[in-house]
Amino acid sequence: MTTMKQAARSARQAGRRLRTMPATLRDAALRAVARRIDDNRAVIQAANARDLQRARDDRIPQPLIHRLRLSDAKMEAIDASLQEVTAAPDPLQRVQAARQLDAGLTLTRVTVPIGVLGVIFESRPDALVQIASLCIKSGNAAILKGGSEAAESNRALFDCIQAALVATDPRFTGALHLATSRDQIDDLLRMDDLVDLIIPRGSPELVRSIQDRTRIAVLGHADGICHVYVDAAADLEQAVAIVTDAKTEYPAVCNAVETVLVHAAVAGRLLPRLREALPQVELRGDERVRALIDVPAAAAADWDTEYLDLILALKVVDDLQEAIAFINRHGSAHTDAIVTTDRQAADAFFAQVDSASVLRNCSTRFADGYRFGLGAEVGISTARIHARGPVGVEGLTTYSYRLQGDGHLVADYTGGARRFHHRDLPAPPAAGGGKG
Amino acid sequence: MTTMKQAARSARQAGRRLRTMPATLRDAALRAVARRIDDNRAVIQAANARDLQRARDDRIPQPLIHRLRLSDAKMEAIDASLQEVTAAPDPLQRVQAARQLDAGLTLTRVTVPIGVLGVIFESRPDALVQIASLCIKSGNAAILKGGSEAAESNRALFDCIQAALVATDPRFTGALHLATSRDQIDDLLRMDDLVDLIIPRGSPELVRSIQDRTRIAVLGHADGICHVYVDAAADLEQAVAIVTDAKTEYPAVCNAVETVLVHAAVAGRLLPRLREALPQVELRGDERVRALIDVPAAAAADWDTEYLDLILALKVVDDLQEAIAFINRHGSAHTDAIVTTDRQAADAFFAQVDSASVLRNCSTRFADGYRFGLGAEVGISTARIHARGPVGVEGLTTYSYRLQGDGHLVADYTGGARRFHHRDLPAPPAAGGGKG
Repeated sequence: MTTMKQAARSARQAGRRLRTMPATLRDAALRAVARRIDDNRAVIQAANARDLQRARDDRIPQPLIHRLRLSDAKMEAIDASLQEVTAAPDPLQRVQAARQLDAGLTLTRVTVPIGVLGVIFESRPDALVQIASLCIKSGNAAILKGGSEAAESNRALFDCIQAALVATDPRFTGALHLATSRDQIDDLLRMDDLVDLIIPRGSPELVRSIQDRTRIAVLGHADGICHVYVDAAADLEQAVAIVTDAKTEYPAVCNAVETVLVHAAVAGRLLPRLREALPQVELRGDERVRALIDVPAAAAADWDTEYLDLILALKVVDDLQEAIAFINRHGSAHTDAIVTTDRQAADAFFAQVDSASVLRNCSTRFADGYRFGLGAEVGISTARIHARGPVGVEGLTTYSYRLQGDGHLVADYTGGARRFHHRDLPAPPAAGGGKG
Repeated sequence: MTTMKQAARSARQAGRRLRTMPATLRDAALRAVARRIDDNRAVIQAANARDLQRARDDRIPQPLIHRLRLSDAKMEAIDASLQEVTAAPDPLQRVQAARQLDAGLTLTRVTVPIGVLGVIFESRPDALVQIASLCIKSGNAAILKGGSEAAESNRALFDCIQAALVATDPRFTGALHLATSRDQIDDLLRMDDLVDLIIPRGSPELVRSIQDRTRIAVLGHADGICHVYVDAAADLEQAVAIVTDAKTEYPAVCNAVETVLVHAAVAGRLLPRLREALPQVELRGDERVRALIDVPAAAAADWDTEYLDLILALKVVDDLQEAIAFINRHGSAHTDAIVTTDRQAADAFFAQVDSASVLRNCSTRFADGYRFGLGAEVGISTARIHARGPVGVEGLTTYSYRLQGDGHLVADYTGGARRFHHRDLPAPPAAGGGKG
């Protein structure tokens, strides 16, 4: 059996091979993966059926079973996602900046893979395919750890991916590893010399527990406590529609709204309409809210809670500044929105709200890699370092500086014989165009 | 006395004020700092004289005393550095990307400050001014901890900076804090809820010890084990000059070369010339080197040592691939150079060497923020996340996404009533132009 250390060393070696492979080869490998998974659908679904049977025997809650199931629709979504990742522009070898430092001395900054990623995800086996494809697309090696409840599904999918990669080119050997036992997570989190970035995909509890246990950088968000602030100058019909969408369109996700702040000037008109529009939602309010509509009182803890459920906290504020201060204090710097027709209020909100995504006159649910046009989403980050907010495949890259000279020596510059002129050059267009 | 926690909370508050201040105000504050330091030169140098006296009494080594001394020349360099930072373009509010997601739904990605920085530096008091000015320029609050041997100099400089900031605008109150005792470092490193990035400036030992003690992201490099590989197709005269510059121009810095790899085909001609060009350098070689020139044997540990001194390890390799594998194994991914006239060899070296800065036909000493044209240097990072290589003020920023809509709801897209068209827009030119 391979230890986690051996896996990580093998991934480091493979990562060095991956970074030099042309995009055509990485894309060919992804097409082979899609074909192999399609050819083995029966085998994969049979493995999934065994996981589902065990889950039922273990009386695992229904929502988890739903996420575990690889229905025909899910298999088609896996295929569509693979096609999308394959078709996306190459995130590597992009020239981010070019500068002539002096005659004959030219600097470029070029995107390269990060190296070795550790990805830890929960029950959904389709996440394995998505993250594996994003790693290959971006030239990163990875160690993948899925949930034990999906062990057989993950193994079947991983075997397909592995076989397709190595059949495409033997240099893919070692690029991806599947960790299967929970103990291996601790080993993985300790290897800060061999693993460059940890990506947890799952519950806030999972993310927090991983952040607590590793010195490796973690790309993830612990909480999504998102706000909608309805300003004095809001279009109230728009406000009701936005809050409804942000709360009810998919309440169990991180970019759903948890707290609505209402300017005192419109509270009397807005709150009754909100209550009417959200019969299925449990509203909780502060005293000023409860003076206007009959809802239970919000406790202090409500303002710091990610409900992930059909519950919504309501608070009346006196002005924009109180709303901004409240959001910066109680929010999780994930996604916050203002509803207003007042351009100045919106500008102040954009400038002062300290969140990864700040929105005006639209639903918080838009804060998502696919909707933002970043392609397949790696995750949403509330970190302030490296990638922030919705992260596409670009977040799996870093850069290196490349300097070409012709015998240039620093002594000539420190001695005054030569001087830098630092002239920016137009960056050549990225091969294949692209976004982000 | 203010606890570190109080200081960090005050910095967080101040940081929120800083991020909304216009560049003109931040630049005005920097000009006031320069004036105040100039007006108080006698006071500052008197404080420095007391530090120097104590250092002599404590028999602190001469190089440390040299770094501690605020000579007239150093005071002028401080002033010049302040002018340079003030004149640099604003790193904030730069639109990095703009995209129309659908009619009336427009996304931009805009640079914002990181938030609160913790900066830990050793004896040089001029570092305090440089890092403080970079923080103000980039709208970040900071907690600064200088070396105890420079306590009086740091206090005098900090008092000038503080007074100048608050006189410019009282909203700067709390933006910068000076920590004075060593215990406070541990407090600082524990506050991952209030401090967003730690920047250690000093010895590799300092950086490593900090990385070992904190969960906060650290921007720094633990080692600079840099290589020059002299290829079969090298211009040997150029190679000798580059190695001489990279080793001797300033041996005590991280971008000095520590190991030279020589292709076997040119070793017989190059090595005697290198020995002749570097009489002041202690050369150590592997067996194949010692068959050609009479130098002491390099031990296994030599290949993993950052000498920071006039010592150079030499090794003969059979080909480019051996050189690349050696560098990826023994280097610290800081800066590595190839000397070659062969374009294909250079391209392979650029593609495969996994370092923050990869150079061709020039000295490793060029890997530096100022020389790269990044403006004042925050540090050099060997991390693979966030900023990498030489880091300018851009490395003290992150970004936020801003989405403007007109009542847009996600349900319309998931329900199929509307579709995203994701059309990239030209990013407006940054105010003030600029680099990086």
